[in-house]
Amino acid sequence: MFRTKTCGELRLCDAGTTVTLAGWVQRVRKMGGMTFVDLRDRYGITQLTFNQEVNAALCDAANKLGREYVIQVTGTVCERSSKNPNLPTGEIEIVASELNLLNASATPPFTIEDESDGGDDLRMQFRYLDLRRSCVRKNLELRHKMAFEVRRYLDAQNFLEVETPVLIKSTPEGARDFVVPSRMNPGEFYALPQSPQTFKQLLMVAGFDRYFQIVKCFRDEDLRADRQPEFTQIDCEMSFVEQEDVLNIFEGMAKHLFKYIKNIDFTEPFLRMPYCDAMKYYGSDKPDLRFGMRFVELKDLTEGHNFGVFDSAEYVGGICAEGCASYTRKQLDELTELVKRPQVGAKGLVYVRYGEDGVLKSSVDKFYTQDDLQAWAERFGAKRGDLMLILAGDTVKTQKALCELRLEMGERLGLRDRNKFAPLWVVDFPLLEWDEETQRFYAMHHPFTSPKPEDIQYLESDPGRVRANAYDMVVNGIELGGGSIRIHDRALQNQMFKLLGFTEEKAYYQFGFLLDAFKYGAPPHGGLAFGFDRFVSLFAGLDSIRDCIAFPKNNSGRDTMSGAPSVIDDSQLEELNLKIDLKEHK
Amino acid sequence: MFRTKTCGELRLCDAGTTVTLAGWVQRVRKMGGMTFVDLRDRYGITQLTFNQEVNAALCDAANKLGREYVIQVTGTVCERSSKNPNLPTGEIEIVASELNLLNASATPPFTIEDESDGGDDLRMQFRYLDLRRSCVRKNLELRHKMAFEVRRYLDAQNFLEVETPVLIKSTPEGARDFVVPSRMNPGEFYALPQSPQTFKQLLMVAGFDRYFQIVKCFRDEDLRADRQPEFTQIDCEMSFVEQEDVLNIFEGMAKHLFKYIKNIDFTEPFLRMPYCDAMKYYGSDKPDLRFGMRFVELKDLTEGHNFGVFDSAEYVGGICAEGCASYTRKQLDELTELVKRPQVGAKGLVYVRYGEDGVLKSSVDKFYTQDDLQAWAERFGAKRGDLMLILAGDTVKTQKALCELRLEMGERLGLRDRNKFAPLWVVDFPLLEWDEETQRFYAMHHPFTSPKPEDIQYLESDPGRVRANAYDMVVNGIELGGGSIRIHDRALQNQMFKLLGFTEEKAYYQFGFLLDAFKYGAPPHGGLAFGFDRFVSLFAGLDSIRDCIAFPKNNSGRDTMSGAPSVIDDSQLEELNLKIDLKEHK
Repeated sequence: MFRTKTCGELRLCDAGTTVTLAGWVQRVRKMGGMTFVDLRDRYGITQLTFNQEVNAALCDAANKLGREYVIQVTGTVCERSSKNPNLPTGEIEIVASELNLLNASATPPFTIEDESDGGDDLRMQFRYLDLRRSCVRKNLELRHKMAFEVRRYLDAQNFLEVETPVLIKSTPEGARDFVVPSRMNPGEFYALPQSPQTFKQLLMVAGFDRYFQIVKCFRDEDLRADRQPEFTQIDCEMSFVEQEDVLNIFEGMAKHLFKYIKNIDFTEPFLRMPYCDAMKYYGSDKPDLRFGMRFVELKDLTEGHNFGVFDSAEYVGGICAEGCASYTRKQLDELTELVKRPQVGAKGLVYVRYGEDGVLKSSVDKFYTQDDLQAWAERFGAKRGDLMLILAGDTVKTQKALCELRLEMGERLGLRDRNKFAPLWVVDFPLLEWDEETQRFYAMHHPFTSPKPEDIQYLESDPGRVRANAYDMVVNGIELGGGSIRIHDRALQNQMFKLLGFTEEKAYYQFGFLLDAFKYGAPPHGGLAFGFDRFVSLFAGLDSIRDCIAFPKNNSGRDTMSGAPSVIDDSQLEELNLKIDLKEHK
Repeated sequence: MFRTKTCGELRLCDAGTTVTLAGWVQRVRKMGGMTFVDLRDRYGITQLTFNQEVNAALCDAANKLGREYVIQVTGTVCERSSKNPNLPTGEIEIVASELNLLNASATPPFTIEDESDGGDDLRMQFRYLDLRRSCVRKNLELRHKMAFEVRRYLDAQNFLEVETPVLIKSTPEGARDFVVPSRMNPGEFYALPQSPQTFKQLLMVAGFDRYFQIVKCFRDEDLRADRQPEFTQIDCEMSFVEQEDVLNIFEGMAKHLFKYIKNIDFTEPFLRMPYCDAMKYYGSDKPDLRFGMRFVELKDLTEGHNFGVFDSAEYVGGICAEGCASYTRKQLDELTELVKRPQVGAKGLVYVRYGEDGVLKSSVDKFYTQDDLQAWAERFGAKRGDLMLILAGDTVKTQKALCELRLEMGERLGLRDRNKFAPLWVVDFPLLEWDEETQRFYAMHHPFTSPKPEDIQYLESDPGRVRANAYDMVVNGIELGGGSIRIHDRALQNQMFKLLGFTEEKAYYQFGFLLDAFKYGAPPHGGLAFGFDRFVSLFAGLDSIRDCIAFPKNNSGRDTMSGAPSVIDDSQLEELNLKIDLKEHK
C-alpha cells in the first residue's frame, strides 16, 4: 500500500503519529519560508507543510509540484496553528519528511473545483478529470449507496436478484430497439432490452415469486436532457399479489431509502391520487405536490358575460398565486409569453389582482363586475394580496398549459425546495390511450397491463373507459417508477393484443414465448420498475440525470471522451454479413 | 395478497391455525375417500388434504386438478398421521376448506422434478418450466446470495459500485466485439464491452480509489460448454496499491464467500505459486490442488539406456498414482488412448507398476534394470502398490499431456471432491507470450499489465523473460479470476504498445483517451476481475455455467425459448443505414 492513511481521516487525536499519504496536489502555496500543499484523495483534503529552513531540498521539491501531480508523502501529524473549521481534517497538518513523486500531470484543461471554469463539453471530453470534482463524485457515491440500500431492502423482503439477458429478441412495439447483428446467425439480430418486461413475467411463470434487478436498459430515441440511450432500472415483479401489495412493498422501499439515505422518516402512508384527479387538479399525471395551487374551474362563473374567449372555451380554470398581486406588467407579460410558447400552446392569460385594498383588478374588467370577480376569488380561496391566473380553451390542452404555469409560479415563489419531498402514488390510469393520428388505441403502459376486473365489461364496447391496475410513484413532479398488475390469462392477453391492433400472427411472432408460457400455469402477478438514474438525481438534487452517470452520452448519443460510436473495419462488417448503405443528404 | 403463508414455512407449532396458500400442483393422489395434493411454491411443498365424506364437491374439484395448475387454498393446519421426515413441512398438512383455481395448465412437456425426463433442448425451449425445478432454482438463489455477499464485503472495504457504459467504442484487439449500429451517427457503431477495463482505469485516474461492479460483458466467440456470449464479471480496481494489497483484499472476498455461503472457514493464507512452478509441477496455470500427484522429472535418470523415445525427448516426466499398481491392461490402454487423443497429443505412455511384492514391472523393461526403476520409484516417492505413469517429448506439450493424465487419475481415484475446495494464487505470469504463427509477442493478460519493475530492463533485449505483476485466483483447477497491477506511466504504456506491434497511430486511435488520461496524474493502480458465472457454478457444484444463468444461450448463441436472434424489419435496417449482404454458401 502506498499509504497508511487517507486524506480524509486524520484528526487532532492523531497528532504526533507518523503517517504516509498519497493523492493529488490540489494546490501549492508559498508563504515566507513555508510551502503548503493541499493533498486530495476521494476521502478528503489534508494540508502538508514543508519548511525551507528545516529541509531545503524537500521544500524545493514541493515548490516544483504542479496541480494534479500524484505524490506520496510521509510526515508527522501536527496541530495547526491556524485551524480550518470548514475541513474535517482542518485541525491538523502533516509536517513532511519525505516526498515521492508518483506521477506528474499536465495542466488540466479546467479547474478541479466544485465551481469549475470548464464548460459542459470540455468537462465531458475530460470526464475522468470532471469526476475528480467532489461535487460530481458525491453523486456517484450516493448512487452506490442507494443501489446498496435497494438491494438490502429487497433481499430482506425475499426478492431474488436475477440477471436477465441483454441480447434478446427484437420486439418493435414501443420505442426503437438498439440491435446487434449476430455473426453466428447470418442476417439475424439481437435487440438490447428496453426493459426486462417479458423475462420478469417468465420468472413469475417459473415460480420465482419475488424478482428484482438493477439493470441497464436501452432505447434508441432522440435524446433530451433527462434521457440517455442506456439507463438503469430497478426492475421488480411479484407473484400472488394485488395492486395493494405491490404498492405497500415499494412504498416501503422508497421509505427505506428516504430513511437510510436522506435521514427522512415518512411515517404516514403516501398519498394516493386517481389519474383523473391528477389531471383535473394539476394537469399532469405526475403532479408536484410540494406546493398546493390546485386548479380551480370557473367555467360556470364566467359564462354569459359576452367574453367570447371564455364563452367559447370548453374549459376555464386557473390557479391562485399567494401574495403575487403586486406582480408588475413585465412579470405578467413574462407569464403570458410562457403559456403562449408553441410547446405550451395557450392563446393568452387572464389575471385578477386581489389588491391589499380589497379591490379586484383584472385584464377582463370590461366583461366582469367586482361582484363577478369576487365570486371567482371566493372559489379560488384567494385573499387580499393574491394573484389569480386564468386560462381557457380545450380541456386537455388548457390543463397542460395551466400545469406549466403552476410549476413556473411554484418556482418563482420558491415552493419547489430540493430538500423537501412530496411522494404520492398516482393510480387508476386508463388502460388505453387513443391516438388521433393513427386512429387507434395504444396501451398506456404496455400490452401486459391488466384492466381493472370491474371494467373488463367495457373492453369491447367502450375501451377508452377501461381503467388499468396501473400505478406510478411520483415525487416532486418526477415519475420515479411505475407498474401494473399484469394479465396472467392467455385469453385476456390475446384480447388485449387484438384491441391494440395486433394480428394473431404478429402477436404470436413477437410474444409467442410469453403466450406459450401462460399455458402452463401462470400465477397472478404484478410489479413495477423505477428509473434509477432519476431516483438518484432526485436525491442528489440534480436537474439532469447526466451527473449521476459516470460516463454519460451527449444528445447525439456520443461519448466525446472515448469517441464512441465509431467506424469499424470492413472485415468486421463482412463477418457480420452487413454493408453500410448511407443515404444521400437531400 | 393471495396467501397468508408460503408453502415452505408451516410447522407443527402452527397446527390449528387457518391459513391460505397459493402455488402449483406438484401432484394429486387419491387414496380411498381422501385426495392428497402436494402444493409447491418457491419456498417449499405443503400437503393439502380433501375428504370426500366431509366435502364431496371440494374433493371432486381437487380430483380435477392437473399437474402445474395454479391454485389458492384455505384450510386448517393439522398434524399429519404419517409424517414425512424428508420435508421441512412434513409434520403437517392443510385440511382444505376452500379451493380456488387461479389458472389451469396444459400438461408440461417434461416432469417438474429434480430428476426430470426432459432433455437439454426441451428444457431450454421451456426454460420457464425448467426453472420451476428446485435444483435449477437453487442455483439462482445461490447466485443472488453470492452477489449480495460480494457487495456487502466490498462496500465494507470502501469500494464504490460504479456502472460503466454498455455502448462503448469498438477496440478490435482481443476477442471479437459485438457491435451496435448507431442510427443517430450513420455508418458508425458502438461495441458491447468485453470488460470495463479502460473505464475502470479511467475511474482510478478520476480518483475513485476503489471501484467494483458486477457487470455483464460480451464476447462474440464460437461457444463452448463453459462460455456464453454474455457473461458476468465481478470487476474491481484499486489505487495506490501493490500486488500484495490486491491479493489480500480479494483473498478476503473469497474467504468471506466461503464463510457466509459455504460455511467454510479458511483461516490460513491461500497458497501462492509462481506460474513457472505451476507449469513445472502441474502442467497448467490453473492447477487443481485438491490432490497432489505433482510431476516428477526423470530425464537425467532415463538417459543413456538406448531407449530412443526418452533419449531424444526434451522432457521425461510422470506422476505416481497411489495404489494403482493393480491397474489392468485395459485400464492402462484407456489411459494411453487418453494421452494420444489429438487434443492431448502425446505419442505414448510408459508405466511402471510397483508390485506389492516389491518387484517393479514396466513397459520399458527391455531398457531399464530393477535398479534403474528403483531409482525412478525413489524420485517419485512411490511405494509398493503404486503405479508410475511417464510421458516424454517436447517440454510444454508433454507437461500439458501429463496435466490431462493427472486430472484423469484424480478423477478415477475420487480425489476431485466437489465439496472440497483448494484455492491458490498463481503469480509471476510472463508479461508476453510468443506466437509462432504470427511471429510476434502478445500480451498474456492485456496490454495494460505492468511488468515487474526488476524485469523492465529486459523489455527490449529479452521480452520473453519479463514477468508481469499479474495473478490469477484458482480453485479446484478453475480460474475464478485474474488481474494485474497496471501501467500508470504513459511512456511505459507506449513502449508496451510498441512491443505488441501497435503503431503509434493505431494505439492512439484505439486507446487515445486512456493515454490522454495518463497525462493528468494517473495514480499507481491495479485490480482484477472474477468470472461470476464460474464462481457460482463452482459453489453450486455444476459442470457448466449454463445452469446458474436464468436464460442462457445455446452453442449457436441462440435463445431457443424466445427465438433470439431473429430477422428485423427492412424499415429498421434502412433507419440504421445497413444492408444485409449474405454470402453464398460454397
